[in-house]
Amino acid sequence: MAVITLLTDFGLDDEFVGVMKGVILTVNPQACIVDITHGIAPQDRLAAASSLRSAYRYFPSGTVHVVVVDPGVGSSRAIVAVQLQEHFFVAPDNGVLTLVLEDYSVDTIVRVTNDRYFLNAVSRTFHGRDIMAPVAGHISRGVDLSCLGPETTADALVSLPFERSRYQAGESVIGRVVQIDRFGNLITNIEAEKLVRLTDVGRGDHFGIRLGRHRIPGLSDSYADVPTGSPLAIVGSKGYLEIAVNCGRADRFFEAHIGDAVRVEA
Amino acid sequence: MAVITLLTDFGLDDEFVGVMKGVILTVNPQACIVDITHGIAPQDRLAAASSLRSAYRYFPSGTVHVVVVDPGVGSSRAIVAVQLQEHFFVAPDNGVLTLVLEDYSVDTIVRVTNDRYFLNAVSRTFHGRDIMAPVAGHISRGVDLSCLGPETTADALVSLPFERSRYQAGESVIGRVVQIDRFGNLITNIEAEKLVRLTDVGRGDHFGIRLGRHRIPGLSDSYADVPTGSPLAIVGSKGYLEIAVNCGRADRFFEAHIGDAVRVEA
Amino acid sequence: MAVITLLTDFGLDDEFVGVMKGVILTVNPQACIVDITHGIAPQDRLAAASSLRSAYRYFPSGTVHVVVVDPGVGSSRAIVAVQLQEHFFVAPDNGVLTLVLEDYSVDTIVRVTNDRYFLNAVSRTFHGRDIMAPVAGHISRGVDLSCLGPETTADALVSLPFERSRYQAGESVIGRVVQIDRFGNLITNIEAEKLVRLTDVGRGDHFGIRLGRHRIPGLSDSYADVPTGSPLAIVGSKGYLEIAVNCGRADRFFEAHIGDAVRVEA
Repeated sequence: MAVITLLTDFGLDDEFVGVMKGVILTVNPQACIVDITHGIAPQDRLAAASSLRSAYRYFPSGTVHVVVVDPGVGSSRAIVAVQLQEHFFVAPDNGVLTLVLEDYSVDTIVRVTNDRYFLNAVSRTFHGRDIMAPVAGHISRGVDLSCLGPETTADALVSLPFERSRYQAGESVIGRVVQIDRFGNLITNIEAEKLVRLTDVGRGDHFGIRLGRHRIPGLSDSYADVPTGSPLAIVGSKGYLEIAVNCGRADRFFEAHIGDAVRVEA
Repeated sequence: MAVITLLTDFGLDDEFVGVMKGVILTVNPQACIVDITHGIAPQDRLAAASSLRSAYRYFPSGTVHVVVVDPGVGSSRAIVAVQLQEHFFVAPDNGVLTLVLEDYSVDTIVRVTNDRYFLNAVSRTFHGRDIMAPVAGHISRGVDLSCLGPETTADALVSLPFERSRYQAGESVIGRVVQIDRFGNLITNIEAEKLVRLTDVGRGDHFGIRLGRHRIPGLSDSYADVPTGSPLAIVGSKGYLEIAVNCGRADRFFEAHIGDAVRVEA
Repeated sequence: MAVITLLTDFGLDDEFVGVMKGVILTVNPQACIVDITHGIAPQDRLAAASSLRSAYRYFPSGTVHVVVVDPGVGSSRAIVAVQLQEHFFVAPDNGVLTLVLEDYSVDTIVRVTNDRYFLNAVSRTFHGRDIMAPVAGHISRGVDLSCLGPETTADALVSLPFERSRYQAGESVIGRVVQIDRFGNLITNIEAEKLVRLTDVGRGDHFGIRLGRHRIPGLSDSYADVPTGSPLAIVGSKGYLEIAVNCGRADRFFEAHIGDAVRVEA
């Protein structure tokens, strides 16, 4: 059973996602197709890269991950296929693989050019259907990446500029809100490891998280550590500092937006 | 082929649901995973309990139903696994199983504590991924509930206070709108059986359904029994009285909300 | 592995779709169920017919396509099962198959009446669950259409009045916006073939597309042929003229709506 995941900005109201699944099943009737999400905002490559990085490790080895957030469809932008740590990726070369490629050194990476693995008719506006879906189906059946096109290197790919959190004066960390999830939780780009180092410095009265004019004193171990409706800071399931409200919405509580500055002080 | 269903308040815009599926497929590559819904409003345990009750019976015996509406994640609330009439359930002990547990006597119920069946690293905010998904995968592979933790009883579980419809003066039934579906249909908590008993009393000029200042005279057999745009009352597919508008929206027609009183008079 | 697709107006917030899948898997545990979309606006049979036509060809032969956009549920409207070019369709007889039936001559078409293939209890409001899902499951297991009910003909079915684009004075084509997709692209009913014939007439200064008071000069080969934020016309992935904005929304740029007139001039 070969798993193929789909991550797109197609939404679910049009038939685009269903069509890609039909194409995959035509190539590989044994494929088990899983949606990561189709709710990426149109053309938001940064969000796609983040979502992919949070998700792909949880799939079985051998999984083929297809990312179709592709504003350059039909232009000269390339499509690439990557093997990395027993995971495969098929995506436009537009940066959506940036975060995944940071995790490990790549085993193989090719530009997908061999139209033998495409649909017979290739449109100029839907390469998810005409190229990426059938190519993923073929990879899931064991077609070697070297059959798909010429080898290239990770350095040659488009890379998106993700902003990292950073230490300041050795005793605080500066980061940003980079995602707001369905529950209104504010996910930052401040890694749990940096928090650990800060808390080693001092976890007394001085430790706290600043967001705008608010200050949260210390980290909680669970949402329920504070009363219902109260704010808290916690290491979230992605391994980053998150700011939340127990049974409430931190985005509304703090009137927060993506890009807002967050400072952790020790 | 083992079926595993997912019922959450995660929505589909984040990657949470996809990640749970990846974890399940890593444990059991043969699992057939079906979404019941991920559109439960955040933390709405009553809605989750109702949705589960309406859905689970339609799945094959042996199905494992996973419910992740879990505002207490990371706190001391337990996670339980239940066997009931050849269906399995994995959920936080917070009442989401209340309606299912009323249907039949439970065969087995355990508190899930054996971390041998969890992911290696368990976060404090996403037990759906770290505990419930892998545990469901293991159950679907045949792991006995007794391996997961100590046995407990249905009486020991958290139960949600669902309000029942009730007879009044022997000749009317008082209930409420408990759900509004995508079509704007108003689903009440008035059971079809109570309607039958009332209609035995008298189905003449006196039978009717009151909602606010409106009165619907009698039950229809199908939406199309009344003209387009007209209101009707009908026994819905869940076995409860529903108030609808043929090819329209009853919620707008009646300006109705969840919790509104409905009275059936015979 | 038998593929069954679902195309409904149920949305994903209720449990309706999940329940249909449970019924199908109870009948055929080997079924591979794929969502085409559940985002059809309530009761919008035209949109369902278009979406089905765009999608079904991309599925493997033998696929069973189930369409539940069914405002007449419970009334005397029939349910039909169709075989066409190695694809099967199960749907209410209300026009949702209109466009599919234009593509090819039908092999077999029956009215579904044999309740041996239904759920034991059939509601008056959810034939998707009680009739169409189990019937699709049985077809996917090889039950012959002739077992389901009496044969009928395509001519006897309800047909929806789709408006075609048309030539005017031999040198222009008049059509309409018939769909707006998630990206704000305006899909018209002007076939690529008609554009080819027009461009044979003359692709010089005179060729252009008019929408309201706007004029787009000529066809683009890809979205990226024009600067970001600029409008373009292109042959879309469905084989029809589409009006788009590179990395933007044509619906907002043109303040366009479904039904707006589009004229191609050569």
